[in-house]
Amino acid sequence: MLIVKKFGGSSVANRERIFCVAKRCAEDYKKGNDIVIVLSAMGDTTDDLMEEAKSINEKASKREMDMLLAIGEQKSVALMAMALQSLGVPAISLNAFQVMMHTTSRYGNARFKNIDIERIQHELDSHKIVVVTGFQGVNKYNDVTTLGRGGSDTTAVALAAILNADACEIYTDVEGVYTADPRIEPKARKLKEITYDEMLDLATLGAKVLHNRSVEMAKKYDVPLIVRSSLKSVEGTTVKEEVKVEKMLISGVTADKNTARISVLGVKDKPGVEFRIFNLLAKNNINIDTILQSVSEDGRKDISFTIAQDAMRETLEVLNEAKDSINVRKIEYEENVAKVSIVGAGMISNPGVAAKMFEALYDEGISIKMISTSEIRVTVLVEEKDADKAVRAIHAAFALGE
Amino acid sequence: MLIVKKFGGSSVANRERIFCVAKRCAEDYKKGNDIVIVLSAMGDTTDDLMEEAKSINEKASKREMDMLLAIGEQKSVALMAMALQSLGVPAISLNAFQVMMHTTSRYGNARFKNIDIERIQHELDSHKIVVVTGFQGVNKYNDVTTLGRGGSDTTAVALAAILNADACEIYTDVEGVYTADPRIEPKARKLKEITYDEMLDLATLGAKVLHNRSVEMAKKYDVPLIVRSSLKSVEGTTVKEEVKVEKMLISGVTADKNTARISVLGVKDKPGVEFRIFNLLAKNNINIDTILQSVSEDGRKDISFTIAQDAMRETLEVLNEAKDSINVRKIEYEENVAKVSIVGAGMISNPGVAAKMFEALYDEGISIKMISTSEIRVTVLVEEKDADKAVRAIHAAFALGE
Repeated sequence: MLIVKKFGGSSVANRERIFCVAKRCAEDYKKGNDIVIVLSAMGDTTDDLMEEAKSINEKASKREMDMLLAIGEQKSVALMAMALQSLGVPAISLNAFQVMMHTTSRYGNARFKNIDIERIQHELDSHKIVVVTGFQGVNKYNDVTTLGRGGSDTTAVALAAILNADACEIYTDVEGVYTADPRIEPKARKLKEITYDEMLDLATLGAKVLHNRSVEMAKKYDVPLIVRSSLKSVEGTTVKEEVKVEKMLISGVTADKNTARISVLGVKDKPGVEFRIFNLLAKNNINIDTILQSVSEDGRKDISFTIAQDAMRETLEVLNEAKDSINVRKIEYEENVAKVSIVGAGMISNPGVAAKMFEALYDEGISIKMISTSEIRVTVLVEEKDADKAVRAIHAAFALGE
Repeated sequence: MLIVKKFGGSSVANRERIFCVAKRCAEDYKKGNDIVIVLSAMGDTTDDLMEEAKSINEKASKREMDMLLAIGEQKSVALMAMALQSLGVPAISLNAFQVMMHTTSRYGNARFKNIDIERIQHELDSHKIVVVTGFQGVNKYNDVTTLGRGGSDTTAVALAAILNADACEIYTDVEGVYTADPRIEPKARKLKEITYDEMLDLATLGAKVLHNRSVEMAKKYDVPLIVRSSLKSVEGTTVKEEVKVEKMLISGVTADKNTARISVLGVKDKPGVEFRIFNLLAKNNINIDTILQSVSEDGRKDISFTIAQDAMRETLEVLNEAKDSINVRKIEYEENVAKVSIVGAGMISNPGVAAKMFEALYDEGISIKMISTSEIRVTVLVEEKDADKAVRAIHAAFALGE
């Protein structure tokens, strides 16, 4: 079996944890498996480096930021290879240059274009555990890029896809995917299996277990993903195309508290106005989340959307500057909101699901600010302070813990 | 003018010092010069990383060690580029992969083979200050290598040579090359100029200002080297082929306290015996310093040599293991000795120089354990505790402070 194993920053935060990971991987290696390990930067390294960069230059160029951040993973992989070697297991670390992980040019948020497998394959053929830097790549200028949030998961899935691995194991500080965040809802239950689509909606909505880009890629290349605990040796959750067990109505409920809402009110209703607004934001690298648009009235309409809280200030600046050119009457915002969502492939054929969710919220006196739905998801926007209460209420209403 | 400027770890140890360096370089840039900056890792980064590696694996492979150490310089260059950008100066950082600094394969002690100039030239042509990682390279396997001690100086000189730079400025925590270490001999005088050969002998002998490899390379490619203070804006010392000022008898006196002596006594005198001994040590990567061999007596001879103190234990182990096969009667050693040397192109035509040095030591009651000379150098081995006294006595005897 060829297994790609990804460990996050907290799993390699110090000497003890590095050895803990090394031992687990060495065990699998000794069973005759080929092992590729993908690592993030140790502990808070990436945040610390960002802080350091900020102290030098508040608006450091993204190219230099990537050049700086990439050292975090290089440190992890070198130390991990050393740890494996000290356990008597042949191992080699490789960075993005050595593997040649080609990405788009966009610093801080690059996408994989193609990955050479020659070097990794060569090292696997000589029976080494290959330890690869997650999160980073090389663009056509030969410059270092980083993949943005969840980048190491994406690296792991991309490598699993290109190497045709038998499994891609994502090790986290939780034991798998739950019906709700166990820190919010103690009755939350671990799922044995979940579909890519469900996971995708859970990931997008802040379940924090897997990043949506990695799930998307896993779905696209049909890579079996396994979410497992890096601390305990217990069965995790498998993410795949078809789940064999009887489909539940909904798989989980999730809350994303890092949410702000911006409403652009009284937009003159001309063709292309949405394009102009969101193109403007895209040009400024602002990631938009849920978008909601009211029907037009008096030739004007309101557009609301959610974004990450730390992007709010910049988004408002960008919009206010362009206020006249996009013909907007007023810009409103709300900083402390949260998205609460239910996800489940089963809801497609069950029309009452959304109503049941709204009822649970109503019973708790939680008011709903926005609603957005997809085939397998219902999302509501509530006050940030109500988010946990909402999760527990919904979890109980759908009897997810049973 | 194209100027390559090299700053060591202490010059970029923190935010303030990084800006201090950035400002100086920005000034030179604004005068219309092309600037390439070569940096070491910040402060004690390299030592800290080595410690961290040791805590994971006492005998970490050199390949992984280089992979780890290389991040130190990458951090420096990224932060420096950010600092320059914040001063409004266009700048870009480049690591060994981006420049393509090809080296031999030997991890931890690689040598440059050739350096591509395309990328650096391209960035200089677009009027950027180019900030390059010192100390590191890439070997034919596309693996990271490091150059060993003084590696960043070597990088600077190599880049200056290949770019045909007008000057290579090495910034240090001293103001230039002195007739003796000012911390040992307060009367020491700064030299305005010195020849490559003199500097070479001073460097080898522990003057710590410039590493011998960088001076050798500067001599080979005729790169004008300038040793300057990174703290004060004062004139430094220029190292070049021919010194125009009247040649002094000797340029300086220097002490290297990191010295141990090993004597291999009663070696059976057969052809190739020296080769066998030193080949054995070379294979174990032990750097030998001065070698002295007595004339043969009774078909046996004694061979003494000096090495760095931290290499003594390993050297003794290697020799003792091979004791029988190399046919040695006894191995002796002395751990705390020091090499004291005088250097000067002027001594070639002045036969009394060595005698004068020995007299100065005799007057101070310092006994000489070994003597070794070259055309422009006289080195004696003394007790480590006598080293400073010896430097001062010799400095006075030759009136170097005047």
